[in-house]
Amino acid sequence: MSFDFAQIANPGVNGLHPYQPGKPVEELERELGISNIVKLASNENPLGLSPKARDAVAAQLSELARYPDANGYYLKAALSEQLGVSPASLTLGNGSNEVLEILFRTFVRPGDEVIFDQHAFIVYALLTQSSGATARAIPSQDWGHDLDAMLAAINERTRVVCIANPNNPTGTFLSADALEAFLQQVPENVLVVLDEAYFEYVPQDQRADSMGWLKRFPNLTVSRTFSKAYGLAGLRVGYLASSEAIADLLNRVREPFNCNAPALAAATAALADQDFVRQSVELNQQEMARLEQYFDQRGIRYIPSHGNFITAELKPAATIYQQLLEQGVIVRPIAGYGMPDHLRISVGLAQENDRFMQALDTILEQQ
Amino acid sequence: MSFDFAQIANPGVNGLHPYQPGKPVEELERELGISNIVKLASNENPLGLSPKARDAVAAQLSELARYPDANGYYLKAALSEQLGVSPASLTLGNGSNEVLEILFRTFVRPGDEVIFDQHAFIVYALLTQSSGATARAIPSQDWGHDLDAMLAAINERTRVVCIANPNNPTGTFLSADALEAFLQQVPENVLVVLDEAYFEYVPQDQRADSMGWLKRFPNLTVSRTFSKAYGLAGLRVGYLASSEAIADLLNRVREPFNCNAPALAAATAALADQDFVRQSVELNQQEMARLEQYFDQRGIRYIPSHGNFITAELKPAATIYQQLLEQGVIVRPIAGYGMPDHLRISVGLAQENDRFMQALDTILEQQ
Repeated sequence: MSFDFAQIANPGVNGLHPYQPGKPVEELERELGISNIVKLASNENPLGLSPKARDAVAAQLSELARYPDANGYYLKAALSEQLGVSPASLTLGNGSNEVLEILFRTFVRPGDEVIFDQHAFIVYALLTQSSGATARAIPSQDWGHDLDAMLAAINERTRVVCIANPNNPTGTFLSADALEAFLQQVPENVLVVLDEAYFEYVPQDQRADSMGWLKRFPNLTVSRTFSKAYGLAGLRVGYLASSEAIADLLNRVREPFNCNAPALAAATAALADQDFVRQSVELNQQEMARLEQYFDQRGIRYIPSHGNFITAELKPAATIYQQLLEQGVIVRPIAGYGMPDHLRISVGLAQENDRFMQALDTILEQQ
Repeated sequence: MSFDFAQIANPGVNGLHPYQPGKPVEELERELGISNIVKLASNENPLGLSPKARDAVAAQLSELARYPDANGYYLKAALSEQLGVSPASLTLGNGSNEVLEILFRTFVRPGDEVIFDQHAFIVYALLTQSSGATARAIPSQDWGHDLDAMLAAINERTRVVCIANPNNPTGTFLSADALEAFLQQVPENVLVVLDEAYFEYVPQDQRADSMGWLKRFPNLTVSRTFSKAYGLAGLRVGYLASSEAIADLLNRVREPFNCNAPALAAATAALADQDFVRQSVELNQQEMARLEQYFDQRGIRYIPSHGNFITAELKPAATIYQQLLEQGVIVRPIAGYGMPDHLRISVGLAQENDRFMQALDTILEQQ
């Protein structure tokens, strides 16, 4: 019997559940004996990625033996210009997941508390656990963040409050006014993570000026990603904007080459192709309306969504998930988010959404 | 005056020095007004990458909007077959840097000690610092690891011992017999990281059966990378082989999509192109011999190297580094590794090494 290393793992590690990834689509197709699976499970951009981003990756295929630019010089310059913040305020990461991880590694330790909504992005809970800190999951109000309850939960042990806006997997949204009032009341030594992974899907006139707020609220940090509207999920690029003082600490902890060369090149090019983003957002609006209409017509309850997905009450969810899968449509069960009666459906292309709606009709007719 | 977040950063963070990356080569060329810089600074593969790896990335350019395979199914299967270890023994990372980081996050905490050689890969010291643990840097013997002194430094606080073989930046090498004797004496609750980033450059008959040792030494972990002989530095893929029990803990801490899609595709294809690796190693041997002969003829002392780089005593190193740079040749100063009188030169293509030798001759003639 050899030594049990689980005994000496850091606080929190043993309580983590190893991530159980979905099988590659090709594996599933082989198992199910079908060949045209529609994946509406991961909130990816159904239009793919900008041709300019694709070309940027293709252009440096012969340079991949060289280390990436450790500091993301060009991407930070482009982001700086677009966002109106200095390059020194930015921390790049392997998806926004990694920038959040870096923030937790920099600031969160055993004994600390982290506040987030009970139905928020699951990474907040995982990072809290792996930091050995204590999670304070605040009950939702109408599936959305209860900012007053979150404020009330802040105490002297609170290190971070995470706000996802829009939130995944519920799609709920907080107005700029509500957020601003919240930020005014958070103590200056408590970090706020405003996770805007789905920012681009929010209509311009409803968007908070979160980048502008950074100067007024030095404890605010704002994360965004290239995985959604920019269509670069396969490349893993996200970033966090903050005060330069916080970014300096985060960039000490960040490993130097955390974004690889294709990721940096594609993100820089994608940022310059705002037409593609607009096109992606328009498609999302059109198809979201079709999905809402479909649910409305059948009396299926759903949570109005500000993202590129929609979460509907479909009982029994585990069974319906499996039946959809057998018809070649993958959606996302969200029991792990405390929502065992819901399924989250990413908004796809028209024909993909048709496949989902037809498959669900077939299932509902047999219920 | 806003709140100073450095006050509440985790132990070790404030002591980290932000990584100061080199400027992109294009920037340097603009600054120096030259256009043909030779980079011999980062131990990259001068042959580039396998055409098969390049094609594998090209083949999925249109799929980059999809999330990567979170579990690296195909890459782990290929590694498993090549190494003779189970897929469940493997942890994939964004370079071997990240797998080491994951190991430290899983096992190392304030109060722990980490042992490594005084001239070892700098990431061991950085990770020890960012974990809030205490570094025990052991004086080298003839620029190499002093295994007896490392054993003697182990105490009840020791959590990890890092051994780089071959070591970067010295190129020194430990025999299989010496390593085996060492492993037999390390207490079973002390983790050993055997970092074999330069493994492929070691002649077959001198290689340790480190993968075979995993069964006999359950506290052993072995890291390797695709950044060197496989030529994928720009893609960032490394892995750690260990007992399945340790890998299970590491994979709980690992973020799910830490290797992106081009990285996984390229590494899987690169592994299948062993001809390219052989060709790379042969070129390295030939050119290493030329560099050694060059140094010998000029009476310049160097450390015999088992890697794809050679470290030579060139005083004053900071000045010579700058003079080489002005002639368009970038090498690596290693004062940060406690070697202020040496420069590390990556073995390049014949014409790149010629450029280095000619430039150095010019400098030495003017001394």
